[in-house]
Amino acid sequence: MFAELDTPSVLLDLDRVERNVRRMAALRDRLGVRLRPHIKTHKIPELARLQVAEGAAGITVAKVGEAEVMAAAGIADILIAYPVVGRHKLRRLMAVAQQARVSVALDSPAAAGDLSDLGEALKQGIPIYLELDTGFHRVGVSPRDALDAARALQRLPGLELVGLASYGGHVHGVGDTAAVDSIIAAEVQLLLETRDALHRAGMPVEEISIGGTVTTSRAAVRPELLAGVTEIRPGTYIFNDLNTVAEGACREEDCAATLLATVVSRPAPDRAVIDAGSKSLSSDSSPRIAGRGRVAGSGQVVEWITEEHGMLRLDPADPLAVGDRVAVIPIHICAMMNLHDRAYGVRGGQVVETFAVAGRGRVQ
Amino acid sequence: MFAELDTPSVLLDLDRVERNVRRMAALRDRLGVRLRPHIKTHKIPELARLQVAEGAAGITVAKVGEAEVMAAAGIADILIAYPVVGRHKLRRLMAVAQQARVSVALDSPAAAGDLSDLGEALKQGIPIYLELDTGFHRVGVSPRDALDAARALQRLPGLELVGLASYGGHVHGVGDTAAVDSIIAAEVQLLLETRDALHRAGMPVEEISIGGTVTTSRAAVRPELLAGVTEIRPGTYIFNDLNTVAEGACREEDCAATLLATVVSRPAPDRAVIDAGSKSLSSDSSPRIAGRGRVAGSGQVVEWITEEHGMLRLDPADPLAVGDRVAVIPIHICAMMNLHDRAYGVRGGQVVETFAVAGRGRVQ
Repeated sequence: MFAELDTPSVLLDLDRVERNVRRMAALRDRLGVRLRPHIKTHKIPELARLQVAEGAAGITVAKVGEAEVMAAAGIADILIAYPVVGRHKLRRLMAVAQQARVSVALDSPAAAGDLSDLGEALKQGIPIYLELDTGFHRVGVSPRDALDAARALQRLPGLELVGLASYGGHVHGVGDTAAVDSIIAAEVQLLLETRDALHRAGMPVEEISIGGTVTTSRAAVRPELLAGVTEIRPGTYIFNDLNTVAEGACREEDCAATLLATVVSRPAPDRAVIDAGSKSLSSDSSPRIAGRGRVAGSGQVVEWITEEHGMLRLDPADPLAVGDRVAVIPIHICAMMNLHDRAYGVRGGQVVETFAVAGRGRVQ
Repeated sequence: MFAELDTPSVLLDLDRVERNVRRMAALRDRLGVRLRPHIKTHKIPELARLQVAEGAAGITVAKVGEAEVMAAAGIADILIAYPVVGRHKLRRLMAVAQQARVSVALDSPAAAGDLSDLGEALKQGIPIYLELDTGFHRVGVSPRDALDAARALQRLPGLELVGLASYGGHVHGVGDTAAVDSIIAAEVQLLLETRDALHRAGMPVEEISIGGTVTTSRAAVRPELLAGVTEIRPGTYIFNDLNTVAEGACREEDCAATLLATVVSRPAPDRAVIDAGSKSLSSDSSPRIAGRGRVAGSGQVVEWITEEHGMLRLDPADPLAVGDRVAVIPIHICAMMNLHDRAYGVRGGQVVETFAVAGRGRVQ
């Protein structure tokens, strides 16, 4: 299998990638929203360009370093969905803002001070989304404090408050479609109520931006859940992984990214060891998913991992032997991609393209 | 704190690094063994050279890619403690073997076929350690099959069976010193019994090589545990982490590597969010350790993480604010180092050196 590649290597099934991208573009059309995919999942400029060519209005990133890579690749509209704090990042962001439209999602006036200076220096208002905590309790202003925060942001020069954003990460692991839909409905309701309160206070914010492949995929079944939303920021859908399968957002045959690995040991009848561990699969796990990855096709489970070893639980009759290769679907593809400098595009069993994961490791 | 650095950034306290390195060199002298540190912990050529300068006989790596980096940096004796399977790696290993003495630890004749061809091509016997499963049940031949495996390895041309190796990873999480010592004693006993059986069968293997900072550190208290061992391969000791503290192998003040991070949000009185998540700390966790990292000095716990966010649990009276910086001790430093292209050497509160993590991401 892919004899020209050493292992471990990331394989991207390009037919599946394109199908996933087109399916999300069709959903965007159906919902009548702007699509702004989060590129943290792939970190590959060519795939960001594919998403834009297939109808994305721009992209979402988490880091200034990712924005630099994507702006250099010609992406013209970039939302940094992360508070940009500190002078080092501001200096770099100034250069990016001269190549692309840059907007930022943040949750407090304290996080906006440096950006305000940047907007003034650039003599253009930097579009700002106020991030709301709709229940995930990560970042995000509490809805009861949102009006005050919005007023304070509006007073800062060099900024233009354009909308509200949220990430409903608390849909993960709920395990019940009705419960997921309730969470999404409550998230959207909070956003719309807050928008209305801002309107009454004379702040004409229009954008309502939500993230998440699971949230977005529910709108394929129940589009009314996202009524009032103007922008969606799903990321994982381009590749999918065991998480999005477990969450019901896709089927296993929609998983476009796998890790090609080699059996390096068959130390016991019920165990093979592959050269894929936390250093190439990531150590992300999920309480809903057994093990740390699953072999595509066979369903063999990577039962546990260390940095360089993945322990496959096998039927003792399984003939898998040292030197054999398997392709593993990861639990969390975004974390896996960040561990690799390259990924290989495949079609019909052939390697047809090598991608540099140019946004990998942009921690700053 | 370190205003010249952006965040997140890896800080290496060089005084502590040197103290850790010298302490292990002193233990080596006391035990009368060869020290062959595993460089997966740091992946930095300069630090491998420091370890050799302070008495290491050579180094241990997991990957051919790591061996390439370290051989190019002038390290003359490299053990690849991992089965090297497949033609791609063999071609590269041939080049490495012309720069340095290369030995390999593996657990089956099936994993030695390619290496045998390489040894023949090089017209020199490649030193081989047979890896024994002493209870961790990862790789390693079962002790009852070791004699057969050794005989089969000896029949392969181009190889020279020099010893036995093991990694007693099952000492982790045991939580009781007496239980840890029993595991170590049983590991060493299995190795020595197997060596004796090989001697009786006419195979003069001499090396008994064991890994692990926890295992090694117990010998500082009870050197007799390692009687008969000829080589130790600890890795983590150079930096240490919350794991080695929890295992009793060191104190918190021996932790030499931290992640400098910035507070980007204070969304609730009991929560601050820092720009350090699984993409910069790794998602490694431990059932023995609360959270995903701990702030050096203050003891504040990173309660949970996502890719770019670390949620600090705070006393509501804590004045930590957006823009403030903290240094986080990770749970597992080896996994963290693999996420960073650079690390910064600090002394007395000043950045004095920038290191390229040249062995990072060498998955193959």
